[in-house]
Amino acid sequence: MYVDISGILEMRRNSAVVRVPSSSANLGPGFDTFSLALIEPNLTVEAEVLGGGRGVEIRTSGRYADSISTDPVENALGIASTNLMRERGIECTVRFTVRADIPVRKGLGSSGAEAVAGVKCLDALFDLNLSSEELIMYSSVAEPNRHLDNVAASALGGLIIVQRGRSGPNVRRYDPPKDLAFVVIVPSVKKASTGDARSAIRRPIDLESYVEGISRASSVAVGLITGDLRLAFENAPFDPVVERFRAEAGVYGAGYSWRDLYEEKERLLERYGVAMTVSGAGPSRLLWYEVSSNEGQRGERPIDRAIEEVSEGLRSRGHAVEEIIFTAPSPSGVEVISSS
Amino acid sequence: MYVDISGILEMRRNSAVVRVPSSSANLGPGFDTFSLALIEPNLTVEAEVLGGGRGVEIRTSGRYADSISTDPVENALGIASTNLMRERGIECTVRFTVRADIPVRKGLGSSGAEAVAGVKCLDALFDLNLSSEELIMYSSVAEPNRHLDNVAASALGGLIIVQRGRSGPNVRRYDPPKDLAFVVIVPSVKKASTGDARSAIRRPIDLESYVEGISRASSVAVGLITGDLRLAFENAPFDPVVERFRAEAGVYGAGYSWRDLYEEKERLLERYGVAMTVSGAGPSRLLWYEVSSNEGQRGERPIDRAIEEVSEGLRSRGHAVEEIIFTAPSPSGVEVISSS
Repeated sequence: MYVDISGILEMRRNSAVVRVPSSSANLGPGFDTFSLALIEPNLTVEAEVLGGGRGVEIRTSGRYADSISTDPVENALGIASTNLMRERGIECTVRFTVRADIPVRKGLGSSGAEAVAGVKCLDALFDLNLSSEELIMYSSVAEPNRHLDNVAASALGGLIIVQRGRSGPNVRRYDPPKDLAFVVIVPSVKKASTGDARSAIRRPIDLESYVEGISRASSVAVGLITGDLRLAFENAPFDPVVERFRAEAGVYGAGYSWRDLYEEKERLLERYGVAMTVSGAGPSRLLWYEVSSNEGQRGERPIDRAIEEVSEGLRSRGHAVEEIIFTAPSPSGVEVISSS
Repeated sequence: MYVDISGILEMRRNSAVVRVPSSSANLGPGFDTFSLALIEPNLTVEAEVLGGGRGVEIRTSGRYADSISTDPVENALGIASTNLMRERGIECTVRFTVRADIPVRKGLGSSGAEAVAGVKCLDALFDLNLSSEELIMYSSVAEPNRHLDNVAASALGGLIIVQRGRSGPNVRRYDPPKDLAFVVIVPSVKKASTGDARSAIRRPIDLESYVEGISRASSVAVGLITGDLRLAFENAPFDPVVERFRAEAGVYGAGYSWRDLYEEKERLLERYGVAMTVSGAGPSRLLWYEVSSNEGQRGERPIDRAIEEVSEGLRSRGHAVEEIIFTAPSPSGVEVISSS
């Protein structure tokens, strides 16, 4: 195999495989601010250095192979990788094979995870020694408004709080609470794009909603960071701004007004101790539960009854349940599984 | 002395003295949500049971004696005490002597502290065994919109986060960080009332400001609760909503546009590691500093230079500095000092 190593870079490896967690952004009231990496679903990407030229080739496999564009100009991995290769003067062709196991356009950060995978592969292949900040920055170029929440969670794992610094946004990472687990319910509801879901929320916000928003967001952050899950669960479901606006715009599926959704959230919390948020821009539902309160036999625990109720609610409104994923916060972010 | 003990209550004591800390609400981006009790200034109130009648008498002493109404219908202590006596069927006259050492209408929660003092005195005199929730609830009746932030800090001490619960607001209390101290600079700027300062902020809020608000508020809460003062200091000064709106309405004194104030905040943080917020609805400035970074001789520490700069800024715009108070978070709230 011939490899062009022109430029200042010495290519050290021929192939690398990375695995990257999906992520759930917002966590209720933390729009564009909070996100959490999830162990499942996750994405595996293999990168191989091909001889000659300069560019990116993308192949897909896995459950959602057909939902991802293989055009490097459209694909988040393609955009981020092409940009990094240009910036670092990497002169060769890299072929990425994406095992697409994260549902696409379902609010689980699949494009952010792909971009992180691409950047991490290049880091491993060409010994770029990217800092965490660089990894996140290069991965975010393909995100709408370059938002950092999904990308940072997939890159670093754990709980992310995006900071509004004077020199632009940056992120803080925290260990997730150990007693916290999730179920992701993926409905058949289609959404156009995250960009369109964002346009639904361009509305002025009144002071009462603002105050409720900062109280609930702070409480979710404090609850997660101090392990006070009750505090987090009581506040996460009831976002008075973005989830409300999107529900009112019909983004979460026909038959789900904000009132419907709110009442479902209240029921789940009261009956089963389960907090429900919409994951990212939706439509996936994220059900939060305490492991220690759900130690019975699968099928008979409070969380199982909550899943049943949410699924039934979707079906009764004409939506199918495409997938039910048992998962937990991922303390680790993207990892290089092998390289040679 | 004749004491009327009609009703179901048995009066146990003739007099009680309580001391109650002042408080600083908002802490930057946490409007109507965050507050912190301050060791200094504080208020001392003595209550004596007088024979006959049913009502409240108020006398004042101390530095701000002339700034407090002694009419029980206007005074926060009077309103809260009269209400509690009516609700609990307390049939006698109580004379309160307020040693008014908290600057009045300066954003240090003087009315909330008075109300807490009055309610706590009655609790001690008549063995009401009020829970923390009841103490706060009865004290808040005299506050604009019954807001809980100042009252809860004066009642419980520490850091308060007001929760928006389904059955109305309630509060969470956290221990304040040990390395945190404050200087309060009280300018001569007059403000009409907290109610008027609230009307300046009845404006729609755009999404960008909202997102910055939830990020900064969450970061202040997490920083204070985990002892990460740097995180708190980087976020507290730059409230994108309420402090901004009030500055733009001229509430903080002639010559202080939001831009002036913002630039002063940036300078203080960069040069001295000092975070500055407006305390409550203002006009007092709250300067936050780390004890461990200010161990030199008084007059030569970074905080001293920050005080000098803020004072000079006020004077150069025609405002006098009425008081400079060195203080720290108060872990304890209202306390009964003596009773007989």
